[in-house]
Amino acid sequence: MNQERVVIENVQPQINAGRHPIKRISQETVHVSANVLVDGHDIVQASVMYKHEKARKWQENRLLDQGNDLWSGSFQVEKLGSYEYKLVGWVDYALNWQHGISRKLADGQHVKSELLDGVIHLEHAFAKANKTESSYLKKTIELFQNDADYDAAVQIATSSELHDIFYKYPARLFLASSDSYTCTVDRKKARFSTWYEFFPRSAGSNYEHGTFKDCEKLLPYVQEMGFDTLYFPPVHPVGDVNRKGKNNTTTAHGDDVGSCWGIGSKHGGHMALHPHLGSEEDFKELIQQAKSLGIEVSMDYALQAAPDHPWVKKHKAWFRWRPDGTVQYAENPPKKYQDILPIYFETPDWKNLWKELLKIALYWVEEFDIKVFRVDNPHTKPFHFWEYLISEVKKKHNDVIFLAEAFTKPKVMQQLAKVGFQQSYTYFTWRNNKHELTEYLTELTQNQEREYMQPNFWPNTPDINPWALQSGNESVHLQRYALAATLSSSIGIYGPVFEQMISSALPGKEEYLDSEKFQIANYDWSLRNKLTLLITKINQARHDLPALQQTNNLQFLHNDNDQLLTYYKWSDNHQSEVIVAVNLDPHYEQESWVAMPLERMQIDEHHTYTVKDVITGSSYNWKGTHNFVKLNPVLPFHIFEVQR
Amino acid sequence: MNQERVVIENVQPQINAGRHPIKRISQETVHVSANVLVDGHDIVQASVMYKHEKARKWQENRLLDQGNDLWSGSFQVEKLGSYEYKLVGWVDYALNWQHGISRKLADGQHVKSELLDGVIHLEHAFAKANKTESSYLKKTIELFQNDADYDAAVQIATSSELHDIFYKYPARLFLASSDSYTCTVDRKKARFSTWYEFFPRSAGSNYEHGTFKDCEKLLPYVQEMGFDTLYFPPVHPVGDVNRKGKNNTTTAHGDDVGSCWGIGSKHGGHMALHPHLGSEEDFKELIQQAKSLGIEVSMDYALQAAPDHPWVKKHKAWFRWRPDGTVQYAENPPKKYQDILPIYFETPDWKNLWKELLKIALYWVEEFDIKVFRVDNPHTKPFHFWEYLISEVKKKHNDVIFLAEAFTKPKVMQQLAKVGFQQSYTYFTWRNNKHELTEYLTELTQNQEREYMQPNFWPNTPDINPWALQSGNESVHLQRYALAATLSSSIGIYGPVFEQMISSALPGKEEYLDSEKFQIANYDWSLRNKLTLLITKINQARHDLPALQQTNNLQFLHNDNDQLLTYYKWSDNHQSEVIVAVNLDPHYEQESWVAMPLERMQIDEHHTYTVKDVITGSSYNWKGTHNFVKLNPVLPFHIFEVQR
Repeated sequence: MNQERVVIENVQPQINAGRHPIKRISQETVHVSANVLVDGHDIVQASVMYKHEKARKWQENRLLDQGNDLWSGSFQVEKLGSYEYKLVGWVDYALNWQHGISRKLADGQHVKSELLDGVIHLEHAFAKANKTESSYLKKTIELFQNDADYDAAVQIATSSELHDIFYKYPARLFLASSDSYTCTVDRKKARFSTWYEFFPRSAGSNYEHGTFKDCEKLLPYVQEMGFDTLYFPPVHPVGDVNRKGKNNTTTAHGDDVGSCWGIGSKHGGHMALHPHLGSEEDFKELIQQAKSLGIEVSMDYALQAAPDHPWVKKHKAWFRWRPDGTVQYAENPPKKYQDILPIYFETPDWKNLWKELLKIALYWVEEFDIKVFRVDNPHTKPFHFWEYLISEVKKKHNDVIFLAEAFTKPKVMQQLAKVGFQQSYTYFTWRNNKHELTEYLTELTQNQEREYMQPNFWPNTPDINPWALQSGNESVHLQRYALAATLSSSIGIYGPVFEQMISSALPGKEEYLDSEKFQIANYDWSLRNKLTLLITKINQARHDLPALQQTNNLQFLHNDNDQLLTYYKWSDNHQSEVIVAVNLDPHYEQESWVAMPLERMQIDEHHTYTVKDVITGSSYNWKGTHNFVKLNPVLPFHIFEVQR
Repeated sequence: MNQERVVIENVQPQINAGRHPIKRISQETVHVSANVLVDGHDIVQASVMYKHEKARKWQENRLLDQGNDLWSGSFQVEKLGSYEYKLVGWVDYALNWQHGISRKLADGQHVKSELLDGVIHLEHAFAKANKTESSYLKKTIELFQNDADYDAAVQIATSSELHDIFYKYPARLFLASSDSYTCTVDRKKARFSTWYEFFPRSAGSNYEHGTFKDCEKLLPYVQEMGFDTLYFPPVHPVGDVNRKGKNNTTTAHGDDVGSCWGIGSKHGGHMALHPHLGSEEDFKELIQQAKSLGIEVSMDYALQAAPDHPWVKKHKAWFRWRPDGTVQYAENPPKKYQDILPIYFETPDWKNLWKELLKIALYWVEEFDIKVFRVDNPHTKPFHFWEYLISEVKKKHNDVIFLAEAFTKPKVMQQLAKVGFQQSYTYFTWRNNKHELTEYLTELTQNQEREYMQPNFWPNTPDINPWALQSGNESVHLQRYALAATLSSSIGIYGPVFEQMISSALPGKEEYLDSEKFQIANYDWSLRNKLTLLITKINQARHDLPALQQTNNLQFLHNDNDQLLTYYKWSDNHQSEVIVAVNLDPHYEQESWVAMPLERMQIDEHHTYTVKDVITGSSYNWKGTHNFVKLNPVLPFHIFEVQR
């Protein structure tokens, strides 16, 4: 038996009935809504209550009635960590009383008896009111209780002043509450980041094994282009036993360096550095040097072991041994990774294993000031492990960010985001034409995924030399970077192969020929070209325009040309607005009339506004619903800043 | 820390994360689905587990993989009461092993070591297998363990026989389970019922107060038309104080009988019968006489009291008294019901109040064998009260059915269904044109509402003399009954005003003139007309055709005529199929080509099939995608039985 009368249901946003948190970054707003119902005709009121995990008191924002029993409101998150929020509702007897009086008066009824009824509501408000309000309420109570001046009493009874006092001090008998939900709050980089990836061992010259000191010399190159996150593939000792030869061959020759994802050797495991790269001090200096240039170094968190990883002897139980005494290699039949042993998460010793894996992450955070991890293949380890690892790390360091490299099935990719990854690699790498891009971005930004999955768009990675780039000219490279950088607020490239358009592939595969995964590459790091120039300009635009620093506020703009993708993005308060047009045709000029989102922009159709191409600096005066766009493959995109 | 690897989410069907049960009737099937995920590439299996509330053991049906990590299956409910169901999932190591072997063999690899790996799976199955299987498994284990016959071992390892044994005896390490959900199971009448309503006090003649004995004489009339549920407005003593005069006037004259919803007088309250209607024995005899004719009597459960109801003195706290000593009348400002006092559900004595209200319901169930209640205005009483009342009644009598008369906002109507009402009045009464009907039925049958809300379509009620019928001719009445009776499996009419087309209204209102709510009516109960004939035929069709005994399996059929509504209905196993066409134009003949649902019917487009109009008896041979339908307002509908 329960005497509450208000029902609150369908609270939004929420993930799987609150099983998982929604995600925001600091200073963002959480817009909430719910059905708030009551039996009968009484007036309901509702609020959202919210508090930071470390706060004692709930804060409250009132909700607004949107009609048809739907209520909505919002709250802003500020501190990192997690917020709890819930919606509450109540019958507001005072407002109800006032509403009843008004309707009866409109019907010509006498309300003397109703005025007396109202005294209890006045007394309730009186108990909470401030000085001015108190004296007003006291006079009103006297007025209602004696017959002296009925007209004056009625006037006050129906006044907006009294309404406001009642609204301010609700009685909230039988307060009903929704379940409580969680919102995790990360720092801004979780939403907005620009990644550059290179292999430290290729940072040197003449095919010699690069060092952290070589990397340090490349920091200005990375900084000048406008990247803020520098991701290194594993920097740990590489296994010697069974290491891969060039181009993923199973037999390594004497000087073959092996895959850096084959972690662990006699030199140590996941808490050691490759001896050729340099010392711990060198690495620390590189990290701090990068930091001083506004770049965070991101490490690879790759949970597997080479056959000569120290764990294989020390923690036999962490691997799966077969009846014939061999240990099982990582495999995805018929694929076989002969150089790595998968970790056996189902081991009876799993609790010690998980603690050790947590210890590794905390080691790099606490000793080296690493706050961003790119996680290798998280989809082949249990979801519960990631939930444990990320939450334990963030309990101590709530500014750490994990990017999931899970090129896998959609629901598995989503689940990893649900259990805590701040960022996710996506299918963008394979979404090329207008229909594919529109459909995919709509899925990411207009569905529930927007609440928990923060995409990171990569045109290429060391594992993926996509068909589009293999066969693509400079215009395709420009398109792909411009699309990634304006559609998603987090992006990354695997360079310098991207900006130097090195795209030779193993025949029939989306794999780079002579991949750096298995050998040291030799780049001309002094090269500057049109791509590096335009990447720099695009990154500058991302830096300057808040509309490009989030992914979800996106609206595609209709045009009749299948080769022309056009869209509008805006910051939360519309102070920054961007219109982007990309020519998807790498060979021919494309043009179309583009439908402007005047309603969303709140621009009258007769009003002229200026759009400024932030790449070329040219400005155009636009007006009305349709404006003309023409793009040549030589510079296949516009990034227009809307200026009022 | 949690070592489970499988994640189960988005279980369907479920209402508000399991807060409310879904509904089925006995023998129906519950189709379930969920996302079932695992990290990596291992093979997952899943089942639905279900059990009746009184059973100890779970029953299990396996689910099927529908692709993209979606799994589905079903179970059948049989007993009344409630079932629990949940979905479970596990990594199937044995099937996984077998799958791996096959892929490695296909890749040309040697699998000697893998055969040894498999012994553990064989041993597990051996421990559970039957005699034949055991001997097969024992031989296989020997074969795998020695090198004698590799080819034979490989053949068995990849055989479907071994697959079937593994499938039959899964090991289920780290079994993951979804939350558990509830399904309430009612008897068939909850889904399929045909109601007739008349006022017992009008069952006599010459405006004299009718009696239960008069009602008994009308049972054959009701039965012959094919109704199975006879609903009486309240049969309790009517309050004398403040009772309403004719046509809802506030001053009653000496012989005015008042509204029968103004319950309670010196003759008693909700557990008494109106003295003019007859004795308890008369009522019991009427109920049993009806039962013998296949008709259940339904009572009105109307929670309010006339000013002279015994409660007003005995339980003062159950009403809301104002500071001036008066008690508040039921009101929906500026409307006022001067003859009834609302019950004060917020009273501090609420627990005793609720118990008394439960006692009333149980009294009529247990003493009079009433198993169907029509509940008056449930939307003006707390949702939690209904949840309490219905669940308490059904704990003792799980065959009782409650129909909610809640003409209110959509979400409030839905909430009442969620908290337990088996049936709901709907907006059908005001849905007339093709667009309105299509949209409304789509909402009811294609959305989540289908899982918990069982609509009952009424073309009219004593409270609603709809515009359509006020101004409508015979064809409109035929249309409205045919639509209700073929779109919804539960329907009702307020007769005999409906079949005699008595539709005079209070000017400008959807209220009957000289409404029986406030006075005794005088009907010619011997009248038989085209309407009674066709109601009889339609009800017979509903009785004969299972496709018309449910509401949810509905597909609208496209035709180009806005005045012609066409749809297909089918029973769960397609053994009964019906195509209905209704001419919505009461004045002119309408025709169109109608698109057949050949794919759903699983009929080849070159195949001829017969449709038989069950009203006229005429048969037609149809073929292909489009067939022609023409309807005259004189008989504005076809109900075609599809015959193969």
